[in-house]
Amino acid sequence: MRFTSETSSGGVFEQLFTLGQIPGVLWTPASAAGARPLILMGHGGGQHKKAPDMTARAGRFVTECGFAVAAVDVPGHGDRPVVAEYDRIATENQARVAAGEELAPLVAGFQALVARQTVPEWQAVLDAVQELGHVGAGPVGYWGVSLGCGLGVPFVAAEPRVRAAVLGLGGALASAGAAARITVPVEFLVQWDDERVPRAQSLALFDALASAEKTLHANPGKHGEVPAFEADSTLRFFARHL
Amino acid sequence: MRFTSETSSGGVFEQLFTLGQIPGVLWTPASAAGARPLILMGHGGGQHKKAPDMTARAGRFVTECGFAVAAVDVPGHGDRPVVAEYDRIATENQARVAAGEELAPLVAGFQALVARQTVPEWQAVLDAVQELGHVGAGPVGYWGVSLGCGLGVPFVAAEPRVRAAVLGLGGALASAGAAARITVPVEFLVQWDDERVPRAQSLALFDALASAEKTLHANPGKHGEVPAFEADSTLRFFARHL
Repeated sequence: MRFTSETSSGGVFEQLFTLGQIPGVLWTPASAAGARPLILMGHGGGQHKKAPDMTARAGRFVTECGFAVAAVDVPGHGDRPVVAEYDRIATENQARVAAGEELAPLVAGFQALVARQTVPEWQAVLDAVQELGHVGAGPVGYWGVSLGCGLGVPFVAAEPRVRAAVLGLGGALASAGAAARITVPVEFLVQWDDERVPRAQSLALFDALASAEKTLHANPGKHGEVPAFEADSTLRFFARHL
Repeated sequence: MRFTSETSSGGVFEQLFTLGQIPGVLWTPASAAGARPLILMGHGGGQHKKAPDMTARAGRFVTECGFAVAAVDVPGHGDRPVVAEYDRIATENQARVAAGEELAPLVAGFQALVARQTVPEWQAVLDAVQELGHVGAGPVGYWGVSLGCGLGVPFVAAEPRVRAAVLGLGGALASAGAAARITVPVEFLVQWDDERVPRAQSLALFDALASAEKTLHANPGKHGEVPAFEADSTLRFFARHL
């Protein structure tokens, strides 16, 4: 793990790093020492580790909860090079949708493919970050919606260190099998008028989670229109469980 | 409006009253003076205005938010006499369910009938309570699930003083028409494994609400198993809107 930049602003210490080929960012409270809960965040499709909503959410986890937060670029996103195979599939999928195919199953297949790469990558990041003195081996949470849900469900299912997860804006086609292996508390976001994920598939993914405590929050609006008060709920959810 | 008893305990001032034939209870902060938000609570079927969960919730509204809270017995419940017509219908419905009819449409029809009596009753209670110096004409919220939702939806639709409502554990058969006239913010509770209200009907009632801000909270478990953390969410919801 190699740190490439360190900055501090508004009580948040930000460290950019690379772990092998993976570019990442770690946010912690300024002057933090000792173990603390860690949130791993997965960004949305077409976004990256430091997209504005990621940075804003991380800032709240750090300053309001004292958590550490880590995020990395998904292959083909942010500071990572284009992946020829993923690009080819994306182009093919665009053509298939243009020809009348349904979008959701294509997205699901693509996310399942990418998850085979990101699950071990994220586990390696967790290993490395938890060795740092100001993060330590505290409880881990996962936050990710949309692509961050499609990749997050197999990750949370595979990773026993994750004790609680906020997921959503994703459907059962992508990950119902992995969802059935998730038993930790989950807060699950649904946009009632999601133009990208059919409502029935969202509800089916929530249904598939094996967690004894899982809570679905559905709000009116499209895929990108999650209301601001859900961010408050997310903070309380993690504060309760980590 | 006639007060029949006044007691004070743990910072909560409790006044039992009758308004015409309606027995009710008003909870306010001890030594309260001046206008404040008021929550009207509707109890569940077979329950009454001072059922333990009603009293506990009211206590939190009063002590944590400084609100006033009023609740009255639904006809045929609590301190009110049996209503021969309602009893006859309930007995008939039991026989029809025993003979294989679906429960939900029968409950819906019954609640619609009772609501024709309770909507004007609750409006009269609101009039009377808001004339009291320690309640005043502040913003009004409504809380009611199960029977309290079946009767609450037509009430909230009819009563412009209500600015926000927590509803749920109820289905669209009972009240989709009235729900389509509700435009205030709503937090809507669904029990994912509700044995009394089919899931599709719960989701359809949420769908029918015309509110621009409405948020559905679904949790695993049966009709009576709403998790305790939803009470916290209810408090925050009303604190945000009243």
